[in-house]
Amino acid sequence: MNKVMVETSARHVHLCEKDIDVLFGKGHKLTLKKELSQPGEFASEERVDVVGPKKDIKSVIVLGPPRKATQVEISLTDARTLGINAPVRESGKTSGTPGCKLIGPAGEVEIKEGVIAAKRHVHLRPQDAEKIGVEDQQIVKVKVKSDERTTIFDDVVIRVKDTFMPAMHIDTDEGNACAANGNVEGEIIV
Amino acid sequence: MNKVMVETSARHVHLCEKDIDVLFGKGHKLTLKKELSQPGEFASEERVDVVGPKKDIKSVIVLGPPRKATQVEISLTDARTLGINAPVRESGKTSGTPGCKLIGPAGEVEIKEGVIAAKRHVHLRPQDAEKIGVEDQQIVKVKVKSDERTTIFDDVVIRVKDTFMPAMHIDTDEGNACAANGNVEGEIIV
Repeated sequence: MNKVMVETSARHVHLCEKDIDVLFGKGHKLTLKKELSQPGEFASEERVDVVGPKKDIKSVIVLGPPRKATQVEISLTDARTLGINAPVRESGKTSGTPGCKLIGPAGEVEIKEGVIAAKRHVHLRPQDAEKIGVEDQQIVKVKVKSDERTTIFDDVVIRVKDTFMPAMHIDTDEGNACAANGNVEGEIIV
Repeated sequence: MNKVMVETSARHVHLCEKDIDVLFGKGHKLTLKKELSQPGEFASEERVDVVGPKKDIKSVIVLGPPRKATQVEISLTDARTLGINAPVRESGKTSGTPGCKLIGPAGEVEIKEGVIAAKRHVHLRPQDAEKIGVEDQQIVKVKVKSDERTTIFDDVVIRVKDTFMPAMHIDTDEGNACAANGNVEGEIIV
């Protein structure tokens, strides 16, 4: 059985250095609050408001470290709340996606693109991928069992990197659709 | 192929006559706004605020006709927003579920129980059920295809009644998890 830990990612923002400067002040460094499962990644103390044409969502967590491009990852429930037609995309593949306004304590930025609903994916190390018999960018199914909402997610992208920790990432809509609570495991079906 | 129309149900409230009296005034009748797919069921013009210990959700649609017991059907995203630990339940099976406060233009009621996340289900007529080879209360899988989030929902309850129209009902979390937009079909897998 090809088991993998399933983690539900709540809405969050990745920021580039330039946007951190504007939102939090010149030279500001993100403050580590909690390390995440992927090595080097962390939840910061910093928060921004995400402003859509319909509504705002206040106090959205910023993840560190800074990235090359600012990216806002929301659920499709959030997208509807904000009034932003966010497409399902892999992280980093934000070409042609909608933008939004972000408000921080020191200023605000208008991003031209970068608002997405993250495509569900599994992080694996090369040795995990080899054992399971999958490769980077392969599409697989993952079955998540629960008492009332067992779900087989199709269209799950495999991502392979030396520095990854094995984990599947889904958003809050997907987490709720399978009623994933606490420590949940998925079974990769190739 | 056992195809069925898939409809996403947004959060809504069913009210008993007694609670309609309190919330909208003695003898008030719900006003039909739009008929729903199930014969006799309708979206009304009436709205109530749902009040949880953490937050409120304003202006939640009331569905008619009145029911024997008041029931609040929310997504698990909503449940988190409200701060109510709503279980996944079939409609009507609300014994031991949490309550909440409802506020209408004429008054407010505190319901002792009835806040649920609806268990995903398929409405069928006896002739549909026979053709597909399923029976009332049977658990099946339903596959919903989409460009980026094809999903196979397990734990789907079959409900059979003469007066039903064939349709699968999922909530907004589930609709977003499979990126169901517009007219969506599911394939019942027995």
